[in-house]
Amino acid sequence: MKSLSDLGEREAIRRILNHITPGTTLLGDDCAVHEFQDDFFLLTTDMITRKTHIPSEMTAYHIGWFVVAINLSDIAAKGGEPLGVLLSLGLPVETSTTFFDDIIRGADDCATTYDTTIIGGDTKENNEITLCGTAFGRVKKNEFLPRRGAQSGDIVAVTGCLGKAGVGYVALQQKNMDPELLQGLFKPFPRIKEGRSLALQHCISTSIDISDGLSSSLYQLMEINDVGFEITKEQLPVTTMMSRISLPPSGISQDDVILHFGGDYELLVTLPAEKFTRVQSVIEKTGGRLTQIGSVTQNKECVLIDEGKTCVLENHGYEHFKKHFF
Amino acid sequence: MKSLSDLGEREAIRRILNHITPGTTLLGDDCAVHEFQDDFFLLTTDMITRKTHIPSEMTAYHIGWFVVAINLSDIAAKGGEPLGVLLSLGLPVETSTTFFDDIIRGADDCATTYDTTIIGGDTKENNEITLCGTAFGRVKKNEFLPRRGAQSGDIVAVTGCLGKAGVGYVALQQKNMDPELLQGLFKPFPRIKEGRSLALQHCISTSIDISDGLSSSLYQLMEINDVGFEITKEQLPVTTMMSRISLPPSGISQDDVILHFGGDYELLVTLPAEKFTRVQSVIEKTGGRLTQIGSVTQNKECVLIDEGKTCVLENHGYEHFKKHFF
Repeated sequence: MKSLSDLGEREAIRRILNHITPGTTLLGDDCAVHEFQDDFFLLTTDMITRKTHIPSEMTAYHIGWFVVAINLSDIAAKGGEPLGVLLSLGLPVETSTTFFDDIIRGADDCATTYDTTIIGGDTKENNEITLCGTAFGRVKKNEFLPRRGAQSGDIVAVTGCLGKAGVGYVALQQKNMDPELLQGLFKPFPRIKEGRSLALQHCISTSIDISDGLSSSLYQLMEINDVGFEITKEQLPVTTMMSRISLPPSGISQDDVILHFGGDYELLVTLPAEKFTRVQSVIEKTGGRLTQIGSVTQNKECVLIDEGKTCVLENHGYEHFKKHFF
Repeated sequence: MKSLSDLGEREAIRRILNHITPGTTLLGDDCAVHEFQDDFFLLTTDMITRKTHIPSEMTAYHIGWFVVAINLSDIAAKGGEPLGVLLSLGLPVETSTTFFDDIIRGADDCATTYDTTIIGGDTKENNEITLCGTAFGRVKKNEFLPRRGAQSGDIVAVTGCLGKAGVGYVALQQKNMDPELLQGLFKPFPRIKEGRSLALQHCISTSIDISDGLSSSLYQLMEINDVGFEITKEQLPVTTMMSRISLPPSGISQDDVILHFGGDYELLVTLPAEKFTRVQSVIEKTGGRLTQIGSVTQNKECVLIDEGKTCVLENHGYEHFKKHFF
């Protein structure tokens, strides 16, 4: 008999899509979308558990921050303004009140950092620490950042920098508890401001967050858009923290950290080449960063140009039920 | 050091309220409420786990139905129309695809029964079966059913009948697998239709669902409204299934089943006495049921009149982290 370990998360989600009845509120990729007059209301939910997302070194404050951040990241990917976050906590009965309070403090800090608040939730007993967040947001219909729309010739760009979560993971493996190295793993900053700025440019052809890793997100966009990508390795904005870790001779490689590791919560976008410079300068003016990393191609394949050599960029992103980094 | 078992769920929630920053989207009791033009958008989330809500006899189909139903019940309590449900599934990797599919089928059936759909979700590994649902709904501002507003002299009424979940629980304890007895526990029917009908009457002074038990819900309304209740035991609409179980001489009593046991997901409302007959007939015309069970009093105490004798109706409802029926 087949089990979920044979399917993997994305196949499980495809199975859900096959079983459920379609409705007027659309089941989106990052967010569900409810059309109301000139607006889309956005809804998204993400669950984290000790086993899949919460290394034992993560503090309660970071756990709370994290679950809010990853949900807001989905709102960011649609160009939305967050309106509130619901938080359900499944916790062991022996959880200390201090730990509990710290989760709430982290969640509240993340929400208020992004000008939103915790608007409700639930607390239940669970043998394993399990947090489920739901973010609610809104975006004007004509500002919505889609997942479908990439055209051959478009520029591929990414916000912020890559490898932050992977560097944190490697540091953790090496028992290096330098908070600067761990921050990228434990305290992601969803790109709400960048998402809103991009939305206001009215020229983004696709947008997705790279929570599952850059390669995985490119493959998802490739499937949806029936296009290919040519990514130039030297253009990738690698975190400055990369130089502060030494990667083991076997095991996780620098490519894994930059190209495949999930958890960076940056936005990956495509847009017409002639718009790029203007959009980039808008993002920079608000203190953000947008870097061209390649272009959209006609052939449905994902290639990486590395020092002039072209090779296939494989899809090695994280997928639940199949493979674990933690 | 204090742990969550010292607090109980409601104290834990009060602790959350003390820690979080208030925002423009209001943290409600049953639902968060986002004001938008003439409407309130409603959001609510509920998590269930194997340990607290999912007896091993419950089928995957019922688990899926249940998590959607309990979230829709919160929308019903506000008079709302459901617009969609998000569903996060935390499941062990060894979960069979059949079990997984049946959860989705149950969830989809419940949603479509109430003219709504599953609009998104998440799947993650968890050692324990953990489902988190989020319901999204809407109600016109002038139709919103509040929790505050009960006046001395108002009638107290309840939809449907009481004791269904308790009867199912007792049957299960006695290894009686009669599906008619278990249905009340495993397959609650949220009172969406009744909630909408009540909302359209524009005279309901308070509304709450009795998911935590009748006594617990009365105590919650008492605190919020600074009033008391006089409940007449003979008026309580007890499920006809009650006669089909025999209660053990020690252990759970008939009063526990009717007054204290959670899981019935009926609506408890108060309304001006002169409006009751009209409202009752409206509910009956749509195939529902609304029964007067007592009245609102000035003194902040909850009393039960049983065969002419008056006694205190104690608050013995279910509370997570503190006490378990399963």
